[in-house]
Amino acid sequence: MNPQKTDARRHHDPAVRGFASDNYAGAHPEVLAALALANGGHQVAYGEDEYTENLQTIVRSHFGGGAEAFPVFNGTGANVVALQAVTDRWGAVICAESAHINVDEGGAPERMGGLKLLTVPTPDGKLTPELIDRQAYGWDDEHRAMPQVVSITQSTELGTLYTPEEIRAICDHAHAHGMKVHLDGSRISNAAASLDVPMRTFTNAVGVDILSLGGTKNGALFGEAVVVLNRDAVSHMKHLRKLSMQLASKMRFVSVQLEALLAKDLWLRNARHANGMAQRLAEGVRAVHGVEILHPVQANAVFARLPHDVSLRLQKRYRFYFWDEAAGDVRWMCAFDTTEDDVDGFVAAVKEEMAQQ
Amino acid sequence: MNPQKTDARRHHDPAVRGFASDNYAGAHPEVLAALALANGGHQVAYGEDEYTENLQTIVRSHFGGGAEAFPVFNGTGANVVALQAVTDRWGAVICAESAHINVDEGGAPERMGGLKLLTVPTPDGKLTPELIDRQAYGWDDEHRAMPQVVSITQSTELGTLYTPEEIRAICDHAHAHGMKVHLDGSRISNAAASLDVPMRTFTNAVGVDILSLGGTKNGALFGEAVVVLNRDAVSHMKHLRKLSMQLASKMRFVSVQLEALLAKDLWLRNARHANGMAQRLAEGVRAVHGVEILHPVQANAVFARLPHDVSLRLQKRYRFYFWDEAAGDVRWMCAFDTTEDDVDGFVAAVKEEMAQQ
Amino acid sequence: MNPQKTDARRHHDPAVRGFASDNYAGAHPEVLAALALANGGHQVAYGEDEYTENLQTIVRSHFGGGAEAFPVFNGTGANVVALQAVTDRWGAVICAESAHINVDEGGAPERMGGLKLLTVPTPDGKLTPELIDRQAYGWDDEHRAMPQVVSITQSTELGTLYTPEEIRAICDHAHAHGMKVHLDGSRISNAAASLDVPMRTFTNAVGVDILSLGGTKNGALFGEAVVVLNRDAVSHMKHLRKLSMQLASKMRFVSVQLEALLAKDLWLRNARHANGMAQRLAEGVRAVHGVEILHPVQANAVFARLPHDVSLRLQKRYRFYFWDEAAGDVRWMCAFDTTEDDVDGFVAAVKEEMAQQ
Amino acid sequence: MNPQKTDARRHHDPAVRGFASDNYAGAHPEVLAALALANGGHQVAYGEDEYTENLQTIVRSHFGGGAEAFPVFNGTGANVVALQAVTDRWGAVICAESAHINVDEGGAPERMGGLKLLTVPTPDGKLTPELIDRQAYGWDDEHRAMPQVVSITQSTELGTLYTPEEIRAICDHAHAHGMKVHLDGSRISNAAASLDVPMRTFTNAVGVDILSLGGTKNGALFGEAVVVLNRDAVSHMKHLRKLSMQLASKMRFVSVQLEALLAKDLWLRNARHANGMAQRLAEGVRAVHGVEILHPVQANAVFARLPHDVSLRLQKRYRFYFWDEAAGDVRWMCAFDTTEDDVDGFVAAVKEEMAQQ
Repeated sequence: MNPQKTDARRHHDPAVRGFASDNYAGAHPEVLAALALANGGHQVAYGEDEYTENLQTIVRSHFGGGAEAFPVFNGTGANVVALQAVTDRWGAVICAESAHINVDEGGAPERMGGLKLLTVPTPDGKLTPELIDRQAYGWDDEHRAMPQVVSITQSTELGTLYTPEEIRAICDHAHAHGMKVHLDGSRISNAAASLDVPMRTFTNAVGVDILSLGGTKNGALFGEAVVVLNRDAVSHMKHLRKLSMQLASKMRFVSVQLEALLAKDLWLRNARHANGMAQRLAEGVRAVHGVEILHPVQANAVFARLPHDVSLRLQKRYRFYFWDEAAGDVRWMCAFDTTEDDVDGFVAAVKEEMAQQ
Repeated sequence: MNPQKTDARRHHDPAVRGFASDNYAGAHPEVLAALALANGGHQVAYGEDEYTENLQTIVRSHFGGGAEAFPVFNGTGANVVALQAVTDRWGAVICAESAHINVDEGGAPERMGGLKLLTVPTPDGKLTPELIDRQAYGWDDEHRAMPQVVSITQSTELGTLYTPEEIRAICDHAHAHGMKVHLDGSRISNAAASLDVPMRTFTNAVGVDILSLGGTKNGALFGEAVVVLNRDAVSHMKHLRKLSMQLASKMRFVSVQLEALLAKDLWLRNARHANGMAQRLAEGVRAVHGVEILHPVQANAVFARLPHDVSLRLQKRYRFYFWDEAAGDVRWMCAFDTTEDDVDGFVAAVKEEMAQQ
Repeated sequence: MNPQKTDARRHHDPAVRGFASDNYAGAHPEVLAALALANGGHQVAYGEDEYTENLQTIVRSHFGGGAEAFPVFNGTGANVVALQAVTDRWGAVICAESAHINVDEGGAPERMGGLKLLTVPTPDGKLTPELIDRQAYGWDDEHRAMPQVVSITQSTELGTLYTPEEIRAICDHAHAHGMKVHLDGSRISNAAASLDVPMRTFTNAVGVDILSLGGTKNGALFGEAVVVLNRDAVSHMKHLRKLSMQLASKMRFVSVQLEALLAKDLWLRNARHANGMAQRLAEGVRAVHGVEILHPVQANAVFARLPHDVSLRLQKRYRFYFWDEAAGDVRWMCAFDTTEDDVDGFVAAVKEEMAQQ
Repeated sequence: MNPQKTDARRHHDPAVRGFASDNYAGAHPEVLAALALANGGHQVAYGEDEYTENLQTIVRSHFGGGAEAFPVFNGTGANVVALQAVTDRWGAVICAESAHINVDEGGAPERMGGLKLLTVPTPDGKLTPELIDRQAYGWDDEHRAMPQVVSITQSTELGTLYTPEEIRAICDHAHAHGMKVHLDGSRISNAAASLDVPMRTFTNAVGVDILSLGGTKNGALFGEAVVVLNRDAVSHMKHLRKLSMQLASKMRFVSVQLEALLAKDLWLRNARHANGMAQRLAEGVRAVHGVEILHPVQANAVFARLPHDVSLRLQKRYRFYFWDEAAGDVRWMCAFDTTEDDVDGFVAAVKEEMAQQ
């Protein structure tokens, strides 16, 4: 068999990139190469394979000996499995109003997980103990879904970051109230790269109980993992993953991708690169009169406000999304494969279109 | 970037294969090669990419112009999305007691889909209009979850097949009662190969409304599709897929695998091969005194009854599962990568271990 | 205010009774009288009232000091709350195929409770350790909803009874496998009356963990209670009851009905009477050639097989239901208000209609 | 049988009343008297009885010929059944942040109904088209639970009222976006009494599609009804009610209570009285220096702000709840049985305790 041969055809131009989403990028070539390594022969299905076993060692090198990884398909799946794991049937989740679980998961936490979300508006996507207190009450009140877990996102949906100390304060506060802490780490690598610390420093080192560890946005084809950091907090993760439709039969192909990213430093290289491109982009457009950068650019996202018609013209040249169209807010995302030329070309385009005003 | 380089390592012996499951096999090399084609550049996430668009054309070449494919991650996900699509909140699903949705999906249909399964014992994993009638009643009775869909599996969990006429009879019967028909086609390719007809012949040509189209067991790394055959029967499939946690962000990598399988005949070659190996295996062991073949071998599964201690000794040499350990029943599965040598070696092993009796 | 005055009018003939269901009966006058006692003034809502507090004392007089009662609205509510209380998100319930939770609750256990039911066919509506074993396996298998509770009905949906020893054997068997036991006691009073033992004798005395205690069929207007017998088995019952929409605001009116029944012997008088009427009915029709009594008549139900057209003619004179219309099986229920004249008149009618054959 | 005789005993002082909740009140004597009328003889269970049939006529006299009532047990049940009826599996509900469904139903809408609530902060518990627009978008976006229904409460949880014109504007706006409108009418009678219009005037006359019609707070022992006003908007209400565990077996006893309230003007007398007492209370305390009335007193609730220690001392004399304890906000509710003496005594107590400051 010739591995180059396939009946599939190329349908797209691999030279075209935009700033719409780190999910628009493909997979890192080293991740793709890893799939071939894991292929061939038979491996036990559903997670009893040697790649998934080895992944545990790798995950523990990042998060310590108590960590355990449960590979799943996607971020929504990771979040819903993780949140079910740390709640009872009567449990609720405190999260930022802007949290992905609240605004971008189609109601899966509610309908699939049976979870009530207790949301709090935030200026920058970040919770604090004070903000948490707006929903952290009524544990004995059966009329209220019981706050049992605080879910934070790192880096946040607004491209901002928690410091390890901020997360520690949240964890201490949550634990003092008998609540667990979940971290949605869809972009945890970008956070670690930006903070320049190991992922552990702002997760289990400061009290996070359970983690959705992102692979897809970091360069995998697909694949995330629920990482249990506090084993006392959960049980029967395998059952939860299965009944949540997140159990891969040929799990070796999820695990080997995470291995390719996490075994050495590919995860960090990818994240640093994406973050750097976002910095370059922010610096470039900051210099353009009439464009306002909206949040601190701390990871791989740039939020900006600019004239609506300029955005519309720009969107004909580069893909990106409005964040709040009425306000004129847009989101520009960089990925592991964004190039300096991509950024420079885009900044030039912004200048050109602003000049047309 | 050198696509051969990766920090991941090989952890398994690619020369070892068994008869435990077609999920133990890896991916077909042509599927793996297709991933590289789809990689590079940016593609719209969540299914608006060109690979997913092209997949529609391919799926329609198999199922006709009315078909629409919704790629998902796995078989449980495909089934739960498909069944939700053809039921109301008060709906129930008539299925065989041995159906995968009933016995192997961890309660996902009930808990995630809110579905009641109305099960019927069958001798061979196959429903008939008469068997369906054991549960097809009480549509006006609010005390009963309303039978709204009949779900059949082709090929069945017992390695048996429905003829197109048998499925037509089921569809006619179901439709006459206002019910839809879902076909769990986790191994639909094995069925088509064995029947030597297009997949269409025993699905939309005879009235099946919605299909779980299997890719994983046919040679994909992962990936299935819900295929809507009767568009009048469903709506908002995209919403259902999302809230069911089955929406892949980088969907091009699901779609291109299905393209590699379905664009020409890889799906059929793989299925024929697996079926042929099952036939070879069945013929081989049928000749061994004391081994009983339990069901007609019509796809890629062989069910057999043999002495329990023989099975235990055999399991030390080849991986496979008991089906009903108390009865001494075992299941031997062949995959696209099973070789004649694998089969012959296994048959020889059966003979040897039986001779030790 | 004149308590006799009301704008409501009588719309029915209070002299007409049939054999359709013990739910067709109204409320016992002593229950109605109790409502007036509990009325007037303010009482804390949602169960913190003095009637609900007093109910605990009464329930403990029946079930011992460890029992705790949680009044709910109806039987389906009681069952779904109780079963959720003794299962995890991944849990399943082993029950008879004929169980009310399986066939008469509109899929509420599945859709509202997220529960998978693992059913077993039985000859007489009764489980045994051997029958339980047909579903009691696979606790470590994430592909299977985990059997965590055995649910039995006493008296059963077929009018039969478990002896205390039979229930003890079931409880011992379930507990040995780490499972709990739930008893659907919608007609527990009929069982106690027929066995001539306290309710405790076949519940907590033999190991039942949680109970749905029926009030409605015993003479209440409405109202049941989940009675926790093994406090170590559950937690947060109040939260579960509330989120299951079974929390009565003016709970005093549920509790005082149960008090009226259970404080002394009204529950037993009602049940004995209904059972006695069923015996009288069974004896009467047993003497009619061509009518077959189908199950032992051990509570307040009589199942019979007779010619279909006879049943149709009888139904014009008395209300009752077919149980299995194709087989000619009918169910005749007696209630606390069934009179000897009712029974004798019905038996005479059976004779007359059979004579028309 | 002597209807006065019962084994139940009086456990409370019927002369004690407070201002904690209209759920603390008992049942109106005329409602209690109605139960006796409906008692005796056999009536078809589960809603096929003559009282439930007659209730339809009564409900139509209020809401017009197209209305259909489905009696249920309680308000949470009514809301969850009604909201499921007007949403698909992918649907969401726009409501005020202060809505009972959001803050007081223990997560039942999410967990039992699978519903996502899209909440909007409001100054006074009232939505407007502008406020609705903060959540009314993204119907084609599968990442977002689809807004399919707007739920408003009349009178609101803050004791305020919508005018018919305000509700019409909401309905027009919702309908223009393809959404339905649900009205949580737990206290609809108080609203009608205060507005001095028929209930119809601010429900179906202005476009409300489905209604939770309250009985309990108006003087029933228990019992509400889902009233379908727009029949085209729903189907299979009976199935939904059953699977939501809200189907009463002896439904005549729910229906006759609603008949007692609604057949003539008891509903209105009760509501007017409660509203009047709230007015008297508000006027009384408004005159007390240091007590601030927080919202317009338009129904039977008075919200006030006063010194925390005064509230604590008052609570030793009269039952009531803090609404926002940190802010010093309290809620005082009047019921159908609140007397002028009750109010005057309470106002005097407020004065006394304030004087102790």
